[in-house]
Amino acid sequence: MNQKTVIALDAMGGDYAPFEQVKGAVEAINSREDIIIHFFGDEAKIKEELGKYTYKEDQVRITHTTEEINCNEAPAIAIKKKKDSSMVVGIKSVKAGECDAFISGGSSGAVLVGGQVLVGKLKGVKRAPLAPLIPTAKGVSLLIDCGANVDARPEHLVQFAQMGSIYMENVVGIKNPKVAIVNIGAEEAKGNALVKETYPLLKECQGINFVGSIEARDIPSGDADVIVTEAFVGNVILKLMEGLASTLISKIKEGMKSTVRSSIGGLLVKPALKETLKTFDATEHGGAPLLGLKGLVVKIHGSATSKETKNAIFQCVAFKEERINEKIQEYLTPDQNA
Amino acid sequence: MNQKTVIALDAMGGDYAPFEQVKGAVEAINSREDIIIHFFGDEAKIKEELGKYTYKEDQVRITHTTEEINCNEAPAIAIKKKKDSSMVVGIKSVKAGECDAFISGGSSGAVLVGGQVLVGKLKGVKRAPLAPLIPTAKGVSLLIDCGANVDARPEHLVQFAQMGSIYMENVVGIKNPKVAIVNIGAEEAKGNALVKETYPLLKECQGINFVGSIEARDIPSGDADVIVTEAFVGNVILKLMEGLASTLISKIKEGMKSTVRSSIGGLLVKPALKETLKTFDATEHGGAPLLGLKGLVVKIHGSATSKETKNAIFQCVAFKEERINEKIQEYLTPDQNA
Repeated sequence: MNQKTVIALDAMGGDYAPFEQVKGAVEAINSREDIIIHFFGDEAKIKEELGKYTYKEDQVRITHTTEEINCNEAPAIAIKKKKDSSMVVGIKSVKAGECDAFISGGSSGAVLVGGQVLVGKLKGVKRAPLAPLIPTAKGVSLLIDCGANVDARPEHLVQFAQMGSIYMENVVGIKNPKVAIVNIGAEEAKGNALVKETYPLLKECQGINFVGSIEARDIPSGDADVIVTEAFVGNVILKLMEGLASTLISKIKEGMKSTVRSSIGGLLVKPALKETLKTFDATEHGGAPLLGLKGLVVKIHGSATSKETKNAIFQCVAFKEERINEKIQEYLTPDQNA
Repeated sequence: MNQKTVIALDAMGGDYAPFEQVKGAVEAINSREDIIIHFFGDEAKIKEELGKYTYKEDQVRITHTTEEINCNEAPAIAIKKKKDSSMVVGIKSVKAGECDAFISGGSSGAVLVGGQVLVGKLKGVKRAPLAPLIPTAKGVSLLIDCGANVDARPEHLVQFAQMGSIYMENVVGIKNPKVAIVNIGAEEAKGNALVKETYPLLKECQGINFVGSIEARDIPSGDADVIVTEAFVGNVILKLMEGLASTLISKIKEGMKSTVRSSIGGLLVKPALKETLKTFDATEHGGAPLLGLKGLVVKIHGSATSKETKNAIFQCVAFKEERINEKIQEYLTPDQNA
């Protein structure tokens, strides 16, 4: 545990990069001495941002890169061609073992492809799912998979349940996390072909706490800790939650400004409302890890603030300290580790 | 148009039946003389409720039934066995042409099965989708399909787009409605196998205004009028919207009560907030029609109030007046109608 955790940070990925990235990184290293941030990106820009802060220089490294991958590029081609991009060089540093984890707010597609192609999967892992934490009335749940690999098979979903359980128990600290599969009814007989085939496999699966189906209506109440689904549905859930929450909140704010009476009331409820909405703010919990890789790759929002960046850094430290990859490996290939 | 519209109303289906059903029906017939409500259910109970109101007796009919289908029963078996249930007798009245439409707040599964098995599909219709209107920032969108027939094929989705367009244009009054397919990215190349196969078919489809993919995040803003997806994803979207809205609103209300200051503010914003949330209340727009049947079957919420019941009745009148089924039939089998 004495060894420092080295975080590869994509300084160019995200709407407010490198400003928010550098700010978040400095906040992280100023609160913990056991972290080293290794920036990948335009050295001059990174140094300019760093110049605004006070921090211990031995906790910072920079690798200058000359290219950037943007969100409009085809991910697979960008990863292949832009060999000197902050994303490719940064991810390769994890593969090479120089860094423990890579964090980026850049193109989701490129992070997903880069993680799988450049880092590679752990032995026995069939697919690497993207698993964001989503806010619920009770705290957070892990929604697994929200990645780009659609049309999953039952055996993929079973591994998602296993890896998700290990993550929630060890990184988020939820003992014996409740695992549920997204379905359109509570009964075992309901669902599409994929869910019907997966359900009995999850029921038989050792080492997870499978509680059955979860209807989408019960996801926001936090009825399950690990919410298993294939990536298309996961992506729909994740984005609908973001879109609906923002539409509803802006409608409510607009409504509060509609009359003089409500405007005064709006000013009075503002602090309490802010506090309430904070509990529904996913950025409190870091980024979305791509699980099952020989290393760790974490996607943060394109709009990530310094707070989200900092929390993602702490999340990577916990991932390493809790030996998540070793635990996944032991669980999936027990014979080889016996 | 002089002919009256006869609505078969399941007086026993729903949490507050027959109270809310009878109340909504009376409100409907007292505001329009061209409607006849034909109740199916326990005659004594229906008459007891009717006794509370003043209305023209020639606008009301009652068929006494002795059985009820509840939500815990397997739909297909219940429809087959409970031949004297309000649901089965009511749906059969549409099949027989005695009634124009059937409305029920009872078991969703039984309504779906009953509609398809007892009424039957229009010629050329491959699948009958359940198509609720969902509230958005701009008004409403039609989410098609949210039914129980999962694992759809591309040709099903194309028909959903066609039937949905006819419904939105003629019943809701949106000229040249924008049709989009739910996807995990905006580009044509994205998506799962079903979406990738369906996309080019929708692009080529004559008579609809296909605008491309819609990401779940953009559904609440109302970017499309007809939102096409297979039933599993549609069901997830519908239920997640309901669940998240209710969780968020109760959190906000709770937050407003957290301090004295916010409680006072809460009282002041209450009327404006109520007005705002009303725009997000789907019950304003009636129920969810099961499209493509030789007749009309509409599912209202189990918790349907008199308002939802009344609006569903008006929706059925518009459906008949606008000759939706004839339009669907002409569109899908143009040669046979030429």
